[in-house]
Amino acid sequence: MTENQEHHYTEDVQEHLHEVEHLLEKHALVETVAHQQEMPRDERHILVDKLLQKQHLAELGQKLATLHPADIAYILEALPIEQRLLVWEQVEADRDGEILIEVSDAVRESLIATMSGEELLEATEQLDTDEIADLAPDLPHDVIFEVFKSLSIEEREQLRSAMSYPEDAVGALMDFDMVTIREDVSLEVVTRYLRRFDELPDHTDLLFIVDREDNFKGVLPLKRLLVHEPETEVAALMITETVILHPDDKADHAAQTFERYDLVSAPVVDAKGMLVGRLTVNSVMDFIRAESESDVLNLAGLREEEDIFASVWKSAQNRWLWLALNLCTAFFASRVIGMFEGTIAKFVALATLMPIVAGIAGNSANQTTTIIIRALALGQISSTNARRLVGKELAIGALNGLVWGGIAGLFAFLLYENLLIGVIMTSAMLLNLLLGALVGLLIPLTMQKLGRDPAIGSSVLLTAITDSGGFFIFLGLATLFLTN
Amino acid sequence: MTENQEHHYTEDVQEHLHEVEHLLEKHALVETVAHQQEMPRDERHILVDKLLQKQHLAELGQKLATLHPADIAYILEALPIEQRLLVWEQVEADRDGEILIEVSDAVRESLIATMSGEELLEATEQLDTDEIADLAPDLPHDVIFEVFKSLSIEEREQLRSAMSYPEDAVGALMDFDMVTIREDVSLEVVTRYLRRFDELPDHTDLLFIVDREDNFKGVLPLKRLLVHEPETEVAALMITETVILHPDDKADHAAQTFERYDLVSAPVVDAKGMLVGRLTVNSVMDFIRAESESDVLNLAGLREEEDIFASVWKSAQNRWLWLALNLCTAFFASRVIGMFEGTIAKFVALATLMPIVAGIAGNSANQTTTIIIRALALGQISSTNARRLVGKELAIGALNGLVWGGIAGLFAFLLYENLLIGVIMTSAMLLNLLLGALVGLLIPLTMQKLGRDPAIGSSVLLTAITDSGGFFIFLGLATLFLTN
Repeated sequence: MTENQEHHYTEDVQEHLHEVEHLLEKHALVETVAHQQEMPRDERHILVDKLLQKQHLAELGQKLATLHPADIAYILEALPIEQRLLVWEQVEADRDGEILIEVSDAVRESLIATMSGEELLEATEQLDTDEIADLAPDLPHDVIFEVFKSLSIEEREQLRSAMSYPEDAVGALMDFDMVTIREDVSLEVVTRYLRRFDELPDHTDLLFIVDREDNFKGVLPLKRLLVHEPETEVAALMITETVILHPDDKADHAAQTFERYDLVSAPVVDAKGMLVGRLTVNSVMDFIRAESESDVLNLAGLREEEDIFASVWKSAQNRWLWLALNLCTAFFASRVIGMFEGTIAKFVALATLMPIVAGIAGNSANQTTTIIIRALALGQISSTNARRLVGKELAIGALNGLVWGGIAGLFAFLLYENLLIGVIMTSAMLLNLLLGALVGLLIPLTMQKLGRDPAIGSSVLLTAITDSGGFFIFLGLATLFLTN
Repeated sequence: MTENQEHHYTEDVQEHLHEVEHLLEKHALVETVAHQQEMPRDERHILVDKLLQKQHLAELGQKLATLHPADIAYILEALPIEQRLLVWEQVEADRDGEILIEVSDAVRESLIATMSGEELLEATEQLDTDEIADLAPDLPHDVIFEVFKSLSIEEREQLRSAMSYPEDAVGALMDFDMVTIREDVSLEVVTRYLRRFDELPDHTDLLFIVDREDNFKGVLPLKRLLVHEPETEVAALMITETVILHPDDKADHAAQTFERYDLVSAPVVDAKGMLVGRLTVNSVMDFIRAESESDVLNLAGLREEEDIFASVWKSAQNRWLWLALNLCTAFFASRVIGMFEGTIAKFVALATLMPIVAGIAGNSANQTTTIIIRALALGQISSTNARRLVGKELAIGALNGLVWGGIAGLFAFLLYENLLIGVIMTSAMLLNLLLGALVGLLIPLTMQKLGRDPAIGSSVLLTAITDSGGFFIFLGLATLFLTN
C-alpha cells in the first residue's frame, strides 16, 4: 500500500538521479584512489577509506529515504547494473516491496536475483495481495509458498483469484481495496462509517453497494455523497446502471471503457453477480502504457522491453528471433532474384532498379496495415465496410503506382535511355503497390479472424511479400519484354 | 460538461453500432425499392415511402438519445461518410458539442464541414471553456468570434489562456472545474459548502486551498476529508508538499508524473503562484493514447491519424510525404549500386545477395533505435552512460554480424561454390551491422540534442544509410577482391 504523503513528490526526477550519481562517483573515487596508491598501505589508511565509503553510503541511504518509491524505481532503471545493486542495498528493507512493484520487468529480475528468500518474503509483507500477484511470476516457488502460508484465508483467496487470470484479463489488473456499504442506510451512517477508516484507499471515487452475500447492487459516487443531505438514504442516490466489469474481460476492452467514460474506478463482478474487486484508472494507465510500448517494440522486432544495461548476450537474445526470421525471408527473396540471373547478366541496370520496386511497395503496404490494425483495435471494421476498404486501398495503391511508379519510370528511362525499361519500371511499381495494398489489408484482417494479434508479425510477412513479389514482378516483366 | 449518469453505459458498444447499421439499412432499403420500381409512381406511394423513412429516422434518433456521447462518437467514426452524416443529423442539437469533443480530429472535421455557423455556435454553448479551446482550431473564425462574445469575462479569460498554450503543454490540457476552499475553516464548514453544489465536478479527488488572491496553498484530498472529525481545521489536514504543475510544462512530463504518482488530478499554478486550473487523469490518458498512436503512425510514415472512410485523395495525401522521401533514398541507393555495374556484370550472384546485406542491418539498426528512443523518452540516457551504450550496441552488432553474417556467408558459399563470395558476404554483413548499430544510436541521440523528436524520421534516415551503406560495402569489397 503506497502512502504517497510520506515521501517527497518531485518536479524533476532527473535531479535526484544526478544527485545519486554524484554520490556514487564519490564512493567509487575512494576505491580508485586506494587502488592507485602503489605503496603498501597501512591498516589505518584502509580504515579511513572504509569509513569514508561508509559515510557516502549512509548519505545515499538518507537521500533514498526521502524519495517516493516510484522515483527510486526510476533511478534504479537508469543506473548500470553494479551501481544499481549498490543503490538497491541502501534502500530500507521495508520499502523493497513497493519499489519492486514499480520497476520494469527486466530490472525487477535483476534486483530479485540478488535477494535471499528471506528478504523476498519480507518485501512481500508490505504488499497488498493484488501486488503480490503481480510479483509472483518473478519469485522462486519456495518464496511464494512461504508468502502464501503467511496470509489470512481471505487474502489467500484473493491471491489465488488474482493469479488465476491471464495477464491481459481484468482479473489480473484488479485490486481488492473496496469500500462497500449497504443500500438501506442514510448518508449520515455512511459518513460515520467512513470516519472509522484511518485513510480511504487510493482512487476511491465510488463506494460499492452490496447485500449481505456481497452481491453487487450499485455504486454511490463520493461526489454525490458530498452534495446531499445526511438524512438521504443510499438507495435514493445509488446508481445501478453503471459500468460493470467481469474478471474475464479483456483488459484492453476495459481500458477502452475507462477512456470512453472517463472513469476513475469500476466494480469487477463475477458471473454470479458477486463483487470480487475493483479496477482503478492507474492500473488501466499502466496497462495502456505497457501495451503501446509493446506495440512499438513488436514493430521493431523486439520480444520484450529491454533493460538498457542488460548484458550483450541477454540483449542479443531479445533481438534474435526477428533477425532470424528476416534472414529467412531475405534468403527467399534472394532466390527469387536468382531465378532471373540470366536476365540480370544481360541488363545489369535491372539490379540497380529492383530495390526501388521492392522498397516503395513495402512502405506503402506498411501504411495500409498500420491504419487497418488501428481500426481493428477500435472495432471499426465490420464485414460490411471491409469490402469498401479493399476498394479504397486498391484505389490508393493504383494512384500511388501511377504517380511514384511514373516518376521511377522516368528516372529509369533518363538514366538508361531505354524507354522499355522505363515502362517496365512503372508497370512493376504499379503492380507491386497493388499487391502491397491487398496484402497490407488481408494480413491483419486474416490474423484477426484467426484470433491472433494483428500487431505482431504482420510487418515481416508483409515485407517478405512486397520484396519477393517486387523482384518477381519487375524481373519477370523484364525477362518477358526485354529478352525476347 | 458531461453528465454521465443521464445516458446508458454499455458493455459492448459494437452492439449499438450494429443496431444503428441495421436501422440505416432499413432506411436505405426504402429508397432502393422506390428506385427499382420502373413504373411511374403515384404521389401516394411516394408519400408512404417518405413516411416509412421518417419513421426509421425517428427510431434512429430515439436510439441515439439513450447513448452516451462517447458511444455516439464511436458509432460516427465507424460509419462511412454518407451514413455518418445521416446519423449526425438525427442527434439532438444540444448534444452536438459534447459529441464533437469526443470524436477524432479527422472525423470532427467531416462533421463540422456540414454545420452552419449558427449550429456551431449552439454546439459550443453546452461546453466548458477548456472544451471550446479544444474545438477552436477546427471552427471558422467568425464562429469563434461569436462564441467569444457570448462568454462572461471570466470565461473569456479562461478561453484566452487555454488557447495560448501549444498543444503539448499542460496549459492546453487543463480544465477550470476546481473546487477551492480556504485553510482557516473547519471540515464542517467545507462539508456544508460542498452541499451547496448540485454536483461536484468529475474527477474531484482534491479540494484546492487558496488564499483571497487565489494563491495556491495546498490540497485537501477528499479521502482525508471523509475520515476526519468535522471539527478539524483544513490547515491541520492540508498537504502542501504535493505535485504542482505549471501551464508551460510539457504534457508528456506531466503524464509521466501522473503515472509515477498514480494521480487523479493535480493543481496547475502559474509563475506567480496563482492557481489557474487543474489537470485530470482523463485528459492525461487521452494525451498518452494520442501520443502512442502518433508514434505508431509516424513509424509507418503517416502524417496523422486517418479517418478510414476519408476519400482516396485525402488518404493519399496523408501518405505521400513519406513515400516521396523513401523514393529519394531508394534512388540514391540505386545509384550506389550503379557505381558497381561492372562488377555485377561479371558476378551476377552479387545482385542476388546484396539485398540480404542491406536488409538485416536495417532491421538490426531499427531495433537499436527503438530501444534508444524509449530510453530517451524516459530520460534514462545521460552523457555518462551514452558512451557505455555505444560500446554495448557495437558489441551486439559484432555478435550479430558474426552469427548471422556467418550463416549468410555459408548460404552464399553453398549456393555459388565460391569461398571468396562467402567471406565477402560475412565481412560485409559484419561491417554493415556495425554501421547500423552506430547510426541506430547516433541518429536519435543527435536528434534529441538538436531539440527534435527522435521518434520522427529516425527510421527513414536509418534505412537509407544501412541500404546504401550495405550495397556500397558489399559491392565495394567484391570489386576489391573478386575483380583483381
